[in-house]
Amino acid sequence: MTLRIAEIFGPTIQGEGALIGAPTVFVRAGGCDYRCAWCDSLHAVESRFRNEWAPMTAAEVWARVTALSGGRPLTVSLSGGNPAIQDFAPLIAMGKAEGYRFALETQGSVAQDWFAALDMLILSPKPPSSGEVVDWVRFDACVTAADTAAAVMKIVIFDEADYLWAREAAERHPDLPLYLQPGNHTPPPPEEEDATIDMDGVLARMEWLVERTLADGWFRPRILPQLHVLIWGNKRGV
Amino acid sequence: MTLRIAEIFGPTIQGEGALIGAPTVFVRAGGCDYRCAWCDSLHAVESRFRNEWAPMTAAEVWARVTALSGGRPLTVSLSGGNPAIQDFAPLIAMGKAEGYRFALETQGSVAQDWFAALDMLILSPKPPSSGEVVDWVRFDACVTAADTAAAVMKIVIFDEADYLWAREAAERHPDLPLYLQPGNHTPPPPEEEDATIDMDGVLARMEWLVERTLADGWFRPRILPQLHVLIWGNKRGV
Repeated sequence: MTLRIAEIFGPTIQGEGALIGAPTVFVRAGGCDYRCAWCDSLHAVESRFRNEWAPMTAAEVWARVTALSGGRPLTVSLSGGNPAIQDFAPLIAMGKAEGYRFALETQGSVAQDWFAALDMLILSPKPPSSGEVVDWVRFDACVTAADTAAAVMKIVIFDEADYLWAREAAERHPDLPLYLQPGNHTPPPPEEEDATIDMDGVLARMEWLVERTLADGWFRPRILPQLHVLIWGNKRGV
Repeated sequence: MTLRIAEIFGPTIQGEGALIGAPTVFVRAGGCDYRCAWCDSLHAVESRFRNEWAPMTAAEVWARVTALSGGRPLTVSLSGGNPAIQDFAPLIAMGKAEGYRFALETQGSVAQDWFAALDMLILSPKPPSSGEVVDWVRFDACVTAADTAAAVMKIVIFDEADYLWAREAAERHPDLPLYLQPGNHTPPPPEEEDATIDMDGVLARMEWLVERTLADGWFRPRILPQLHVLIWGNKRGV
């Protein structure tokens, strides 16, 4: 049985959310059940890139992670696409046996029993601007599946409608640590790895989100930009 | 009994370290037992600015924090200068009674029993480039005083000597969560609130620190820039 892997890279630092700044190796899974309008990882989503996804066994993925990290334990970030549509249980078991930690980011559309083996489950329900609609029954099943793994909620926000949606969505899970992240309107086109970004726009949206949230007196969420975009632009593989 | 307060501002987000992105009101204490070469808050350190520090009772400080936050609990960040050279116990007691949380950042040169009343104690031992020398007996006393408060270590790094020093300093407290932060070589002059910064230099130092640390296979620290500098430059009061 093989996994579809779009890319494995690192070590670098996690650029967003609860683990921001933490050294990590990324394992990006190919394939997704969503088609977000502003997806920044289309090369790991669209079927037309399927021939670029490597079929790899868990042992092969693990060998690559070990090589990249020099055998020194760190956090492995499972991303995508939606990594929850494949079976990462064998990979997680291999890594945990060596002292590595695992975080997985998913929109929360597919729950897996093996979420409980993670160190952190980052659930990122998609706001209206994505064009997708959250199935909260499935989302809640993901929270339940996390069990003793630390579950957090991260919501990407592009505009006022997203913000108002986030306020309500967050209320569904008042006990989850909450992260708001301004959207990047100029994600890299999948064919062009080093496209320039609208840095002024990225910064302006961050400023707006901070002001909007704090003016509301909504002090629950942490508000964090995509640090890797600020530092490295849209360059892939960092 | 009054406190010497250089400024109170917010709510904004914490720009660095363990609480990065968290909504906070800053209470910046005036006065410091250190004179770091690259201090970015000289207006709260040098005696020549003493006439700008307001003598305020804890109740007066608390009234201001309450007004700024609209009475909604958030994290209050006690900074400076070195806030540990004054008595913030009464202020912390007032705030905790209302559900607020308190974080304090200090170099770790003066321990106080009331550190135990904090939610988080951020200890920032100064590297060689500061021109100061850490007294580790005093530093360790701060760690002990934190008791059940979450203690973390944050080290600012300007150059290779600082980096090598940080590797050894971190080993003294292997159980503390550790944060590395690239130094900002163009901090705002105290007389000029909106001085421009060398953003390319700030970003270059962040890239260097990430590469240096990860190439070493040193995966313990989180590496985070001063987010407020990336977003707002050196503007004061955000």
